[in-house]
Amino acid sequence: MAVRVDLNISLDGFATTTDQTPENPFGEDWGRLTAAYVGTRTFQARVFGKTSGEGTTGVDEKYAAAYFEGIGAEIMGAGMFGLHTFPDDPEWQGWWGDEPPFHCPVFVLTHRERPSIDFANGTSFHFISATPQEALDRALEAAGDQDVRVGGGATVARDFLAAGLVDRLHVAITPILTGDGIRLWDDLRGLETGYEVSSETAESGVVHLTFAR
Amino acid sequence: MAVRVDLNISLDGFATTTDQTPENPFGEDWGRLTAAYVGTRTFQARVFGKTSGEGTTGVDEKYAAAYFEGIGAEIMGAGMFGLHTFPDDPEWQGWWGDEPPFHCPVFVLTHRERPSIDFANGTSFHFISATPQEALDRALEAAGDQDVRVGGGATVARDFLAAGLVDRLHVAITPILTGDGIRLWDDLRGLETGYEVSSETAESGVVHLTFAR
Repeated sequence: MAVRVDLNISLDGFATTTDQTPENPFGEDWGRLTAAYVGTRTFQARVFGKTSGEGTTGVDEKYAAAYFEGIGAEIMGAGMFGLHTFPDDPEWQGWWGDEPPFHCPVFVLTHRERPSIDFANGTSFHFISATPQEALDRALEAAGDQDVRVGGGATVARDFLAAGLVDRLHVAITPILTGDGIRLWDDLRGLETGYEVSSETAESGVVHLTFAR
Repeated sequence: MAVRVDLNISLDGFATTTDQTPENPFGEDWGRLTAAYVGTRTFQARVFGKTSGEGTTGVDEKYAAAYFEGIGAEIMGAGMFGLHTFPDDPEWQGWWGDEPPFHCPVFVLTHRERPSIDFANGTSFHFISATPQEALDRALEAAGDQDVRVGGGATVARDFLAAGLVDRLHVAITPILTGDGIRLWDDLRGLETGYEVSSETAESGVVHLTFAR
């Protein structure tokens, strides 16, 4: 029953990108930041439904496969669910269509009440107003003997890290400089204390760093 | 005749530290940031004069040995030489005592004129007021067919990177979060364009990243 965070960041530490435009609502940087992860066999199968073996199978794939293993509940911020982008749409059900790739209860942190949403694939979204510790208690209960992921966004992940609630942090550092956005590492001086830190380089050039306790 | 930069940075991107006190003028973070590099056999021999084989011999040592190879001239900022700390001491000769570990001409960027200093071991310091390109022209001429290092500090290195003057950037990323200081990567969005980026993990946990063109 560990609490886990996995994020993609740029070499200059940004977990979000800022080059979105009306014509290109995700921007180009997000694609560059996550290309190695999106390219893995696990991501291609789990998120895009490609079951005929497309995708890379190296070090990036090892982390992508681990990403989805053993998660019994997830916590995410309102922004990651899309509530900041579509604040007044009561029909909004997240970015992921009819098959959200979570397959477990997801607790969305928001101060505005919304009814829960249940999908046939086991994903459900529950909207709660809670501190990190309170949200974690709810998620741990829902996860049973499995792990809880704090999925993001970056600010939510940082809040849980700063509160000392995270047992395993994995960051995939893509060697590009995006120059602006939300910095994962802000105000986390000394975070490494109490963790074992290890790193591994992927064929793609991505550096995988793990803080574990 | 390549132009090279080598720096130690923290995981949160800081190339300088801020925990100096009158009692501990280097602070503790600088020691943590550079521990793996200082521990190498090359550093122990070259900087501390230990010639009986003390020091590590793994991946960190490989980069430390390369650091000193083939450099014919160096450029550094006034702060790295110590002119900001001792601005009014005409006798100041840098931090390195009678055996500065450069063994080549060093061009110190400063707007205040000072006479050159020559050491018996081949190190000489020349104080010049120049743009990055002008300083580089001076250093390249002095280096003959060898490389020029832009030694630092962080702001000077960033100026040369931003001006597109650096052929090979090596950063040793120590997996600690120091939280404050000068960020190497500020205002360098897209730097990776035009470079081959590679990375390697050392036994110490330090990640060595190289931008080469």
